[in-house]
Amino acid sequence: MLCPPLRVGQPPTRRRFLASSAAAVCALGPWPVDDAPQFGVDGRRLRDIWAALRRFGGTSDGGTTRLAYSDEDLAAREYVAEVMERAGLAVSVDLAGNLVGRREGAGGGGGGSDGRPLVTGSHIDTVPGGGSYDGQVGVAGALEAALSLRGHGVELLRPLEVVVFQNEEGGKTGSRALAGRVQPAELDIVTASGFTIREGTGRLGGNPARLAEARREPGSVHGFLELHVEQGGRLEAAGTQIGVVEGIVGIRRWDVEVQGAANHAGTTPMDQRRDALVAAASLIQAVDETALSTEGRQVATVGKIEAVPGAPNVVPGLVRATLEIRDLSMEKIDSVFRAVERRARAVEEAHDVSISFSRFYESLAAPTAPRFRDIVEQAAETLGHSHARMPSGAGHDAQSMAQIGPAGMIFVPSRDGISHSPMEYTSPEDMERGANVLLHSILALDREPGDADW
Amino acid sequence: MLCPPLRVGQPPTRRRFLASSAAAVCALGPWPVDDAPQFGVDGRRLRDIWAALRRFGGTSDGGTTRLAYSDEDLAAREYVAEVMERAGLAVSVDLAGNLVGRREGAGGGGGGSDGRPLVTGSHIDTVPGGGSYDGQVGVAGALEAALSLRGHGVELLRPLEVVVFQNEEGGKTGSRALAGRVQPAELDIVTASGFTIREGTGRLGGNPARLAEARREPGSVHGFLELHVEQGGRLEAAGTQIGVVEGIVGIRRWDVEVQGAANHAGTTPMDQRRDALVAAASLIQAVDETALSTEGRQVATVGKIEAVPGAPNVVPGLVRATLEIRDLSMEKIDSVFRAVERRARAVEEAHDVSISFSRFYESLAAPTAPRFRDIVEQAAETLGHSHARMPSGAGHDAQSMAQIGPAGMIFVPSRDGISHSPMEYTSPEDMERGANVLLHSILALDREPGDADW
Repeated sequence: MLCPPLRVGQPPTRRRFLASSAAAVCALGPWPVDDAPQFGVDGRRLRDIWAALRRFGGTSDGGTTRLAYSDEDLAAREYVAEVMERAGLAVSVDLAGNLVGRREGAGGGGGGSDGRPLVTGSHIDTVPGGGSYDGQVGVAGALEAALSLRGHGVELLRPLEVVVFQNEEGGKTGSRALAGRVQPAELDIVTASGFTIREGTGRLGGNPARLAEARREPGSVHGFLELHVEQGGRLEAAGTQIGVVEGIVGIRRWDVEVQGAANHAGTTPMDQRRDALVAAASLIQAVDETALSTEGRQVATVGKIEAVPGAPNVVPGLVRATLEIRDLSMEKIDSVFRAVERRARAVEEAHDVSISFSRFYESLAAPTAPRFRDIVEQAAETLGHSHARMPSGAGHDAQSMAQIGPAGMIFVPSRDGISHSPMEYTSPEDMERGANVLLHSILALDREPGDADW
Repeated sequence: MLCPPLRVGQPPTRRRFLASSAAAVCALGPWPVDDAPQFGVDGRRLRDIWAALRRFGGTSDGGTTRLAYSDEDLAAREYVAEVMERAGLAVSVDLAGNLVGRREGAGGGGGGSDGRPLVTGSHIDTVPGGGSYDGQVGVAGALEAALSLRGHGVELLRPLEVVVFQNEEGGKTGSRALAGRVQPAELDIVTASGFTIREGTGRLGGNPARLAEARREPGSVHGFLELHVEQGGRLEAAGTQIGVVEGIVGIRRWDVEVQGAANHAGTTPMDQRRDALVAAASLIQAVDETALSTEGRQVATVGKIEAVPGAPNVVPGLVRATLEIRDLSMEKIDSVFRAVERRARAVEEAHDVSISFSRFYESLAAPTAPRFRDIVEQAAETLGHSHARMPSGAGHDAQSMAQIGPAGMIFVPSRDGISHSPMEYTSPEDMERGANVLLHSILALDREPGDADW
């Protein structure tokens, strides 16, 4: 392959993306097949793949804006497709617009395996003004694991699929389509790129009119394993290198309305007020206290608040706010909510207001498969990396994939727990450790029997 | 005077306003000079004047929108000018655009009085979507008092002035101009009518270029007395008919910022959060508790709040809010604020946030003159109306006039304490009681010696 010089400053045409993309692959250097002394990923190559991704939407502050369906997204996927090919994966785009690289297993359709693929991957789209690690570390890690397997001449028994799921940030469209969960109305949603999901899916090479056919039958995969940055501060705070994810927490969200009586802030005596904001303040504290004092790792957040009419000289008559509760158990979410509701009744009584909760969002908890946790934990242990079990507080493609087959996740530390920000950071060493745990987990999963329940 | 039929449905030209205004005066009926059996205002005529004012901007929901400088404002002032003339007052517009009706006293420039006028009045402009009583009851009451004096053939020793102050709702422009407090930059403020204060003052017949000359020297008036609706619920709650106003409370307002750390609401454990909204909730409760538990009638309000970034799934990193404290004593405001600040320091400690206060507004307290309180109280007592002393939590033109001479205020009850709303209501009986207290107070003030301090 002749490596062309990288040309910069050209308009964002398909041609330019291809040129820069090819240059990025070239930058990876020669295959390390011959000079790899021990079995593991090539940390430098992993870092190079990660850095190459930053050419598509990377910003000068260290962040990345690569909105789903944007030109940057399309170009980055072309780059990923080229790396997939170099890793010996056959590249295709499924009907949902997911980019899939697949290598058949030595076991073929039957033989040493049941023919069900082992799937790994993540996403490369970002939020506006996002970071360069969220999703991208998982894709780079999966690519590097595939390159390493080929480089080391390892033939898996089972088929291996590396998937780049489309539009994770805008609604996990790609992975939810595989689970058959995308509603037709969602296709009309205008995403951050300005394209609707319908338009965007078409741009990626999917077929929005046939989205339902993208669905994969539950039980049709051997399992799914996703490497991802933690996006929280638990690992760093504990000095732990690998997070063995117990599952993705469920989420319920409510609109909260506190109805009091608006009044002139000068003429209404303190003891005659029905101040909706003072009552809401009491409720916000009750939410915090309830989540803090309940045994477990649930979180509860009031993230948005508005006082109506909202003038310095008017006693607020109405407060609108949101309440969100997350936990690995939906029952736990319910019990925390009931405790908040009980506290709300006391606030109503104390402040002569009425408080209503109206649920507007729900995302079911997705526990990881117990044997996937064991395998990830064992891989970390074998590699000498410290590890801890933990829930994922954020949503991930693994959550959708858990509806198709057993799923697992590997977390690596996020500095200061920062995510969705140019400040997002995971060290090259942590990325390498995560990719190695992924690689060794793939090897272990390849050899284990399938799950009878799927 | 030939009373023309009222023509409705015509465009809002000066011609139409004059026509309807004349009709409103005609609706008052004949002078009650001969058939007034006892000394007091004519309640029915008072009610008619009040109702006639509603022809200018009155809305079908019982409210009034008569923005300062609007066509409705101009037309209503023409109507008021005609009533002033019928009350024997010489009508003029001062350089500040205030409408002034003046009748000389029998004492002339010296004689039985010192020649300093006794001033009464209020305003007729409203907020958008406002009520039909705020200001208007005071103007109607002053007009009716003047009509009664003339009707009963009473000659005052001192000059009497009935003033309609311009743009009370948009910054007390008229009364503050008399106190020499309007800053040149204020003239460029665009008011709710769409006119700047400069343009509007010109529309009313004032001369914005010579506004400074509108100033009246401190000590140049015998005093000022304003009848007004309470705009609060104290009188109604206590079943009291007349409020003897002790003064207009001072106001200080602060922008409050609570700075914590924004974080992912799913991945940030409860005990690692620096949630600015939970901290702000604690502060809001501290404000309420401090104002409630401190001896006195101070009020403290957080009327406006915003959580940043303000998403259901993000722990708020910053809260912006406002704090307002009012009291008759500026020292009391300071001491309440210092107590709030002390509580804020404890909140900072408990929640690992920083809290800042930045003062952005101040209005000095304006106590009424003690002997004005006594005279108003005595008038209520003589008339057999129940009365109570109370602060005014809202600002009034009397606040500006207190800088020129001794001032007093008479409050009448507001149903449910509602104001600045079409729901604003004061009964005809309460209006009449208020106008009678005004009339009898004017008579008492006319006979008392001037204040040596002014």
